[in-house]
Amino acid sequence: MQDGRTEKSMIIILKPGAEKQKVDDLIRFLQSEYSLEVQRMDGVNYSILGLIGDTSALDTEPIQERSVVKKVMRVQEPYKKVNRAFHPDDTVVQGSGFTIGAERLAVMAGPCSVESEEQIVSLARKVKAAGANFLRGGAFKPRTSPYNFQGLGEEGLKYLETAKAETGLPIVTEITNVEHVELFVRKVDVIQVGARNMQNFALLRELGKTKTPVLLKRGLSATIEEWLMSAEYIAAGGNPNVVLCERGIRTFETATRNTLDLSAVPVVKRMSHLPVIVDPSHATGLWWAVEPLAVAAVCAGADGVMIEVHESPAEALSDGKQSLLPEKFSSVTQKLKAAAELMGRTL
Amino acid sequence: MQDGRTEKSMIIILKPGAEKQKVDDLIRFLQSEYSLEVQRMDGVNYSILGLIGDTSALDTEPIQERSVVKKVMRVQEPYKKVNRAFHPDDTVVQGSGFTIGAERLAVMAGPCSVESEEQIVSLARKVKAAGANFLRGGAFKPRTSPYNFQGLGEEGLKYLETAKAETGLPIVTEITNVEHVELFVRKVDVIQVGARNMQNFALLRELGKTKTPVLLKRGLSATIEEWLMSAEYIAAGGNPNVVLCERGIRTFETATRNTLDLSAVPVVKRMSHLPVIVDPSHATGLWWAVEPLAVAAVCAGADGVMIEVHESPAEALSDGKQSLLPEKFSSVTQKLKAAAELMGRTL
Amino acid sequence: MQDGRTEKSMIIILKPGAEKQKVDDLIRFLQSEYSLEVQRMDGVNYSILGLIGDTSALDTEPIQERSVVKKVMRVQEPYKKVNRAFHPDDTVVQGSGFTIGAERLAVMAGPCSVESEEQIVSLARKVKAAGANFLRGGAFKPRTSPYNFQGLGEEGLKYLETAKAETGLPIVTEITNVEHVELFVRKVDVIQVGARNMQNFALLRELGKTKTPVLLKRGLSATIEEWLMSAEYIAAGGNPNVVLCERGIRTFETATRNTLDLSAVPVVKRMSHLPVIVDPSHATGLWWAVEPLAVAAVCAGADGVMIEVHESPAEALSDGKQSLLPEKFSSVTQKLKAAAELMGRTL
Amino acid sequence: MQDGRTEKSMIIILKPGAEKQKVDDLIRFLQSEYSLEVQRMDGVNYSILGLIGDTSALDTEPIQERSVVKKVMRVQEPYKKVNRAFHPDDTVVQGSGFTIGAERLAVMAGPCSVESEEQIVSLARKVKAAGANFLRGGAFKPRTSPYNFQGLGEEGLKYLETAKAETGLPIVTEITNVEHVELFVRKVDVIQVGARNMQNFALLRELGKTKTPVLLKRGLSATIEEWLMSAEYIAAGGNPNVVLCERGIRTFETATRNTLDLSAVPVVKRMSHLPVIVDPSHATGLWWAVEPLAVAAVCAGADGVMIEVHESPAEALSDGKQSLLPEKFSSVTQKLKAAAELMGRTL
Repeated sequence: MQDGRTEKSMIIILKPGAEKQKVDDLIRFLQSEYSLEVQRMDGVNYSILGLIGDTSALDTEPIQERSVVKKVMRVQEPYKKVNRAFHPDDTVVQGSGFTIGAERLAVMAGPCSVESEEQIVSLARKVKAAGANFLRGGAFKPRTSPYNFQGLGEEGLKYLETAKAETGLPIVTEITNVEHVELFVRKVDVIQVGARNMQNFALLRELGKTKTPVLLKRGLSATIEEWLMSAEYIAAGGNPNVVLCERGIRTFETATRNTLDLSAVPVVKRMSHLPVIVDPSHATGLWWAVEPLAVAAVCAGADGVMIEVHESPAEALSDGKQSLLPEKFSSVTQKLKAAAELMGRTL
Repeated sequence: MQDGRTEKSMIIILKPGAEKQKVDDLIRFLQSEYSLEVQRMDGVNYSILGLIGDTSALDTEPIQERSVVKKVMRVQEPYKKVNRAFHPDDTVVQGSGFTIGAERLAVMAGPCSVESEEQIVSLARKVKAAGANFLRGGAFKPRTSPYNFQGLGEEGLKYLETAKAETGLPIVTEITNVEHVELFVRKVDVIQVGARNMQNFALLRELGKTKTPVLLKRGLSATIEEWLMSAEYIAAGGNPNVVLCERGIRTFETATRNTLDLSAVPVVKRMSHLPVIVDPSHATGLWWAVEPLAVAAVCAGADGVMIEVHESPAEALSDGKQSLLPEKFSSVTQKLKAAAELMGRTL
Repeated sequence: MQDGRTEKSMIIILKPGAEKQKVDDLIRFLQSEYSLEVQRMDGVNYSILGLIGDTSALDTEPIQERSVVKKVMRVQEPYKKVNRAFHPDDTVVQGSGFTIGAERLAVMAGPCSVESEEQIVSLARKVKAAGANFLRGGAFKPRTSPYNFQGLGEEGLKYLETAKAETGLPIVTEITNVEHVELFVRKVDVIQVGARNMQNFALLRELGKTKTPVLLKRGLSATIEEWLMSAEYIAAGGNPNVVLCERGIRTFETATRNTLDLSAVPVVKRMSHLPVIVDPSHATGLWWAVEPLAVAAVCAGADGVMIEVHESPAEALSDGKQSLLPEKFSSVTQKLKAAAELMGRTL
Repeated sequence: MQDGRTEKSMIIILKPGAEKQKVDDLIRFLQSEYSLEVQRMDGVNYSILGLIGDTSALDTEPIQERSVVKKVMRVQEPYKKVNRAFHPDDTVVQGSGFTIGAERLAVMAGPCSVESEEQIVSLARKVKAAGANFLRGGAFKPRTSPYNFQGLGEEGLKYLETAKAETGLPIVTEITNVEHVELFVRKVDVIQVGARNMQNFALLRELGKTKTPVLLKRGLSATIEEWLMSAEYIAAGGNPNVVLCERGIRTFETATRNTLDLSAVPVVKRMSHLPVIVDPSHATGLWWAVEPLAVAAVCAGADGVMIEVHESPAEALSDGKQSLLPEKFSSVTQKLKAAAELMGRTL
């Protein structure tokens, strides 16, 4: 691990024949506005500026706009709080009665949507019995269509509380509106930010003012760097309790709903100290792909998984397209336990 | 154009050997919950259900989850208000003193960010002289990094108002927080929803309660259908004044910042009656690609363009990476005028 | 598993008000040209045709072109030979002295390029000692640039043969030219078709005439269905010995070279009976991501892995960007052994 | 335009604390193997090497592999022959009786496949009358499925020759096998390399030995740089007559078959001196999108278009899904003529 001061730096390649005065202007700007040390190397017909100091606040776009600049290249990542370079040890997110990122894997299970008190309490008992240590379920649902069911809302949160009271399982549920932050802080153990809101910066900023653990799902077309920058919003605001969740990215492939990017697990682990979990249910949309990919996620180094489980009385003999029946989930957790051991962890 | 009642329909292909009782359950569910007429065709070892009636409120996912269902296929689009099938005529969005979607092309020009009153007033005068009929400029900026300049905020809106007072140009500026809707309705002519907020449904719902024209940018990885569904949120809420803006999608290509999807123009025009404009500046991030693509956009049928223009005193002799100098913009509008004529329109 | 005759079918949705005579023409065409049974269902103002029989030879595009057709939808996959529906049991590819797809995992290791006889022989010994059961190495290299090293060619093949003679490891190496098929059949154990040639149909057709096992890498932007169709070319030509290799697809993410699509493993396993292996080295381009993803691949159900190993005397103390040093590879195989056990397999 | 010698250069950023001896090894390697001048700049705890000289033959991957290297960055493009920096003037490709890239736009029209002599001769007459100056049509068809029609082959070429004899239109048709190069050189005016073969380097190398104009379609997931590198293969082999053809890239969007990347036109025009044409028929797969996008392509600076035209006696009253009827094509060429004038060109 390196000293942050000298490492957080940037290279600016100047255009051949760049006008001397404009280059001097640029250097002065970098020195005075950002207190950077600027080293200049002159080649036969091009020059390079090497910047020493904290460039995380330096916006590269206006630099790119300068007429003398050919290319700007970050040598160091633009995030600080969530950067492993500055915090070599793994972060363990702590809630009341649970941790994420420690030896024990997080296994978050439950239905896509809370449908009734009866449903969520019954399911909470079953997933707990099968080995889950978190209950997930949507009360406020972000839906592509304005005509589709948008969730039970505040009533759904109440049912989740009941299920928690009955089982002791901490609650993970999604927030969709910045105006609900206070409500969620009161009622929820882990506040989930969905893929569509990963760059809802107003929401991230409000969550940064709380101390409640935030599960930040990766946006459908977010690069890993952008995802970490969104985590940085929360951390920079004062809330270090961020858990990242890989849930598939959008690609050309249509055999699965999205493309689960398991490479993101070792990459994020190297770039950041935050815990990362994986959601194979939403990523693939295929119940029969959940088990192999959940096990693979743990073997790739994930700190946990999020799995959709549902019991449909009308459909009692089969799994749905995306969600598992409690019985199937129970056999998945058996496999996860073996994978956890392989990785020196527990379930 | 077809009769909506019978057209808005869906096909459900059942699995071979689907249990009779479960199929009957499904049919009853569709009839009673959605008042649909269900036609059944039985083949040698598979069956199909054809649904007649309004299926826009029908969520396909739980249907897919049913054990007897192999595939669900929409024959008709899930949007209604913004669907050309039900509103054959082009929508012309009307504001006070302007229209978008009528014969005259919308030319929205201005800086990425409002930096000062002086800057925006001076630039407004120049873009107006060059042929722009809208002033764009960001007051609240959604930034990937929490450490980058987030815009002048409310002060920026005030400067935009001054620029409007001086030039008469209506203002287009981006909203980033649902709590600002009331403020924007008071001060802004066209409220821009940025790509990152295209599926911020809480925000779309609030904008649907107003009558202010909304410029809805396409999300970085949004399909055209999802984009139209987001427009449907606003329209279904009661605000028909939606303008779509294509601004590039995220692909593997890195030569341009995003990939401008000009095909989206004829596709949207066929699927929807809403006006659509194109932003080649953000799509490409390359000032020298703005002119050819702005002209191409008009020739592809767009109702207008949004172009970034900036004057940088320190950099007076060149265009930036993404934005044009006012002089260059002026030559672009000359070309746009010729393209408008070719398309039977005016500037 | 279903009876192929009735299952390989297709649905054609006709446009509302489709002209009766043209529909009759279409039905006659399907009956006479493809011997299909056509079932027709008439709704209030649209109709559906259900096709019964083998539609794999039926090209959907000209059907789509017909003026009366709204949509064509395959219910069954267009591949036969490689389709699990018709061959429920896993295929085990047999070569002289090796199998792929049976209980023992295939571990293919070696350098990107054969550089010298000394290099490849020395490395072959080391990877064998570490647990590899195949030697990989490129003799003919497909290079993006005409100015880059294109491989040692036939001389490289000779060195691979020497390495095989010394170690007994079967050879996997890439073919880049249809004119080399005969040469490769004589000298190589497993002929690799690279991502760029996945749809070089002339090459696939020639390989279909041989019996040599073919390792078919997935194209950078190939869907799983297209990949299986390319396998079908080889199998339909008479060579059933096809091994699929997932090696990453092209997406917007740049933190890894490509995006490893591990979901493809369970998906391919369900759609096809062919063995599938995974190449995490090329997929990520990051040596430190190879171990977690190789282990994850095995846990996701892969029949083996392909790993780049290289020893660089000048660089003896570190792994390269993409390839592992033999020592590191040795520790990876230890982990793979544990993962194999978890999956009820051996190394 | 700059002097090539000093411009074709590269930046290597070394890791902090890079071992002196290994850095010296790297510098010596660059000097002796590639005759490069290496300039070194030392910062507080990192160093940069600036390379002066021709780095096009320098493969960056093995450099990246070195343990002392953090990042390698090309300042100059890796292509030479097709690089506008070294050939400022537009290339005009010359064939017998035609040019591509000069004032007159290339309008290539015809069916997807040659079906019969009668069909192609009749269609050739009609597209010529409508304004086409090239006849396109496939004789050898690359098909995803081995069971689909693979074209008439050599017989199809013969029919194309007849159509040329009757109309004088030069022939553009696709090659799919390196063994056909000689045949195509004898019979074809412009040899088309399809998207799937864009990186079939064996084929490109053979075409580089001829002088016949080559129409190089962009691969489905090829970056613009890779596309230009494939053109470089042909040019470096000795055939400067390369025409680029943008035909859509693969993205997540499904409303169009591929995503037409019109930005590629101005980008290619800036990076290269080669002519570039656009194929909106294959890109979108939607006949009604062909006209607006063909016109847009010309306005974006394309040197021509390739359009699918087909007459289907059974379907005489409508356009197909992708191809235009001759009558519709005729109205498209009227629009193209107007667009050509706008651009200072002719049809």
